[in-house]
Amino acid sequence: MVFYLIGLGLGDERDITVRGLEAVKSCDAVWLEAYTSVLCVGVERLEAFYGRLVKIASRDVVESGCDEMLAQSKNGNVALLVVGDVLCATTHTDIALRAKKLEVKVEVIQNASVMGAVGKCGLQLYSYGQCISLPFWTEGWKPTSWYEKIAFNRSGNLHTLCLLDIKTHEPDYQHLAKTCVTRYLPPRFMTVNQAVEQLLSAEQEHQRGVCGPETRAVGMARLGQADEIIVSGSLAELRTVDFGAPLHCLVLCAPTLHDIEAEYVAQFAAA
Amino acid sequence: MVFYLIGLGLGDERDITVRGLEAVKSCDAVWLEAYTSVLCVGVERLEAFYGRLVKIASRDVVESGCDEMLAQSKNGNVALLVVGDVLCATTHTDIALRAKKLEVKVEVIQNASVMGAVGKCGLQLYSYGQCISLPFWTEGWKPTSWYEKIAFNRSGNLHTLCLLDIKTHEPDYQHLAKTCVTRYLPPRFMTVNQAVEQLLSAEQEHQRGVCGPETRAVGMARLGQADEIIVSGSLAELRTVDFGAPLHCLVLCAPTLHDIEAEYVAQFAAA
Repeated sequence: MVFYLIGLGLGDERDITVRGLEAVKSCDAVWLEAYTSVLCVGVERLEAFYGRLVKIASRDVVESGCDEMLAQSKNGNVALLVVGDVLCATTHTDIALRAKKLEVKVEVIQNASVMGAVGKCGLQLYSYGQCISLPFWTEGWKPTSWYEKIAFNRSGNLHTLCLLDIKTHEPDYQHLAKTCVTRYLPPRFMTVNQAVEQLLSAEQEHQRGVCGPETRAVGMARLGQADEIIVSGSLAELRTVDFGAPLHCLVLCAPTLHDIEAEYVAQFAAA
Repeated sequence: MVFYLIGLGLGDERDITVRGLEAVKSCDAVWLEAYTSVLCVGVERLEAFYGRLVKIASRDVVESGCDEMLAQSKNGNVALLVVGDVLCATTHTDIALRAKKLEVKVEVIQNASVMGAVGKCGLQLYSYGQCISLPFWTEGWKPTSWYEKIAFNRSGNLHTLCLLDIKTHEPDYQHLAKTCVTRYLPPRFMTVNQAVEQLLSAEQEHQRGVCGPETRAVGMARLGQADEIIVSGSLAELRTVDFGAPLHCLVLCAPTLHDIEAEYVAQFAAA
């Protein structure tokens, strides 16, 4: 019996690999992790394509160790589907570790991830430094710890991929306080515009010329989908570009680009 | 008419995506780029799986701009298959740019790459700095420009992925000088052991404690294939571990690991 961790890639149901599809079809139970990323198609499309019921695995289910899934995999093959690639996030490494402790055989089937897909904008993957995550700011919590990481990457003439926050299962605390009943807010996905606002605001605070209005960047949305969009420009320019539906991401360019990078990126210039 | 750039992933013919397979089957001509990486199966297996002839695109063909392929794509769909993901290397960005200039419609179908697959060793992808390439040293050419990049990554407590050189189409210059006829040497793939020798030698030269015998690292071979192997240990330990058939790669660990990284990596400890 095998516990499969299967990457779905970035587009729709047809971006699974042939190996992945065969594995899913061999499974007695199929789960979809749908909170670290989201597909552009609903679970019904996956179910129709696989000929299998697909259960949604919430953050609670996954972070509490996937007990039910791992128990199921004692009696039959089980798949946990993950949008993009499998082992990018700590969450999935955790599960693999837990499965091994329970002596469940784990098989990982990888796929394209956003970290590779950003190659589409023409900035060389070899010239990226550490990737950062931009969390949504709240009234009382406006972290800028990522500012130092961007500064570090720039000091080595490296690009910085900024992954933008998504909130798919956020408790409505106001409602909870009033009614003692937990309900969830509608999903939120950080836009390139919101990310730019946070970057510019952090620049104003730290003033080290790391992510100001003139900084060159590339905004991308729905990478790997038919209507993907890539726009390059200064942060001041990207601030108002409408990138449409989620998911968005943003790359801050290294101070100096190679000629071929500059030529490629220029194709996507704003305006 | 479409010119497809299609990633094949890292294993065998079944690691292509369903979308990629459909695209290949729609093509009148199918080419395989087989010098920046190699599959573990022969071209015959691909041909049988696709029901299409597959022509090998040598380095000369690809770097001279794929003229023949691009001309073919004026009259029918053409695919260039690439092992791993498509846009990791400059080469493929070049081709996409050239195709656009010729007003050929380009579609990119991505897949897993080694840069994501190294996630299997449990070191978080978010904690990698710039990736480096280690070229084969020759008698008179022993570059260590990558040493500075490893030092830079370590100063930010980041891991370093080392991609190891492959030579698949290397002219035999001795034979050429004797006979005026070009023939090619057998393919060579750098092993983890050879990489470790070069790292230790560079450390002896530069002496900055960047990649000495005690430095922690993870060697990996044939990632994404059934017999993949992952071994962690000091460079002194990895120096003599037999990783078997190609392709190999090596990750130099950040000076300090997160607890969960340390626990995961420990599973693969040498000896």
